[in-house]
Amino acid sequence: MRDAQRRLSLNSKTVDRLSLDEVVELAADTGLEAVGLWRDRVQEAGVEQAARRVRGAGLRVSSLCRGGFLTASSPDGVRAALDDNERALDEAAALGAPELVMVVGGLPEGDRDLVAARHRVAERLDALAPLALARGVRLALEPLHPMFAADRAVLSTLEQALDLAAAHPPAAVGVVVDTFHVFWDPAAEESVARAGREGRISSYQVCDFNLPIAADALLSRGMMGDGVIDFAHWSAAVASAGYTGDVEVEIFNAEVWARDPDQVVREMKERYAALVAPHLAAEAPQPV
Amino acid sequence: MRDAQRRLSLNSKTVDRLSLDEVVELAADTGLEAVGLWRDRVQEAGVEQAARRVRGAGLRVSSLCRGGFLTASSPDGVRAALDDNERALDEAAALGAPELVMVVGGLPEGDRDLVAARHRVAERLDALAPLALARGVRLALEPLHPMFAADRAVLSTLEQALDLAAAHPPAAVGVVVDTFHVFWDPAAEESVARAGREGRISSYQVCDFNLPIAADALLSRGMMGDGVIDFAHWSAAVASAGYTGDVEVEIFNAEVWARDPDQVVREMKERYAALVAPHLAAEAPQPV
Repeated sequence: MRDAQRRLSLNSKTVDRLSLDEVVELAADTGLEAVGLWRDRVQEAGVEQAARRVRGAGLRVSSLCRGGFLTASSPDGVRAALDDNERALDEAAALGAPELVMVVGGLPEGDRDLVAARHRVAERLDALAPLALARGVRLALEPLHPMFAADRAVLSTLEQALDLAAAHPPAAVGVVVDTFHVFWDPAAEESVARAGREGRISSYQVCDFNLPIAADALLSRGMMGDGVIDFAHWSAAVASAGYTGDVEVEIFNAEVWARDPDQVVREMKERYAALVAPHLAAEAPQPV
Repeated sequence: MRDAQRRLSLNSKTVDRLSLDEVVELAADTGLEAVGLWRDRVQEAGVEQAARRVRGAGLRVSSLCRGGFLTASSPDGVRAALDDNERALDEAAALGAPELVMVVGGLPEGDRDLVAARHRVAERLDALAPLALARGVRLALEPLHPMFAADRAVLSTLEQALDLAAAHPPAAVGVVVDTFHVFWDPAAEESVARAGREGRISSYQVCDFNLPIAADALLSRGMMGDGVIDFAHWSAAVASAGYTGDVEVEIFNAEVWARDPDQVVREMKERYAALVAPHLAAEAPQPV
């Protein structure tokens, strides 16, 4: 079991106005060991250059965000999605990121058929899973909060994600446990345990659910402690399920983005130490 | 099987600025046979007077909205919730409303323990179910969209509602199928079927889910056809589950509320006839 504080990873979205170089520098300067990177920042820097910078700073890349958007129904849309996800897998491999976070996409414009859209996601995963395995990168399915079911991710619960993943080896397809997206779900605790049993927990992401919901609902993600989520509960559940990987803090929030990134990262470390880390320490009983 | 058009019920919230008398008059004038009433409008008119008005106009009351708010943890809060729900049951009985819609409530201020809050809901139902049975009124548990899990209803899925209801006879506790709240749920179709098998469908409420989500998320409910919901799918599912009761249209939406109520009700009838009614006609196969 690694020291929980050393598992904290800064997702680049939390300090959205920083460049890749600045994210890496800030993470290293504040004693972090890992970062989660978004593709836009990586592509601005260039993938090879980004990989060198991260390695040079002695950091791990806990995940690359994000692939997905698999719900197109036109042949061109299907082809474009497969091509883009193959590029994302290549980028993740170049960065040494073990997990590619997948936001699966919403309904095509004017379409209301969630059942069919969900079926298309399964079909696209059939095509992508072998490409992921070949690169040693896992497709990390992220169920999004149901308020995004129609326009961003037709994947809405951990149970649904695990059912989708089940068609593939655990090394090819896993699931993301993001507190913002799952905290409301009365079945999520059991699904976290199942994900552990099945070897499918790709990532544990923490941020709070702020109320009232922001005018742009995407930006309701809050610093841990500012909202309604019980981090002791979810962190203990993930630990009990056997997850020992990195813990990313990914916050979309206009007020957080407006603040000094150094202060944001300092506060992130403090809140993580107070609210999350103590509950990640569940270890299997030692033999006596 | 009643003619589907005759099952349409106007929920008073859809024409929020009208008084009880005005709602009743508008419903009767436009040829509707049923209304769903909110307690505020009923109480303004006086319960007995409201009951007389509705009966005098030849209307059914498909449901009374709403009881619930059962999550208080203080002894005073628990007592107040039980007292208020007993009053609501009396009002429903006086109105001849067979169903009391229950919005179970969110987390108490500063509390983050959803598991405990859900347990308290179950305890309060244990106390209320006999009172409901004695009055011939059913407690109709309404799972709310998960975006309201923390501040309005810790009951988030039909499956969870059915699991709660299972401790009580079907005549005491049922569930509401509201398209806005359940359309995202990949397990809801199976839950609707289960609700039918278990005799628990208290109400089918239709309104759309508008995007983008309104600044006040509660007001994202839209006129059928304006949002992302597949009414053919859900109406057929409810019909296949054996539901033959009234279909309420309940729309919280600032733009709808600003319009002429007569026009709103006319549009409601047209949209219902086009998008909902044709899919409610599923009948059991006739013997040959």
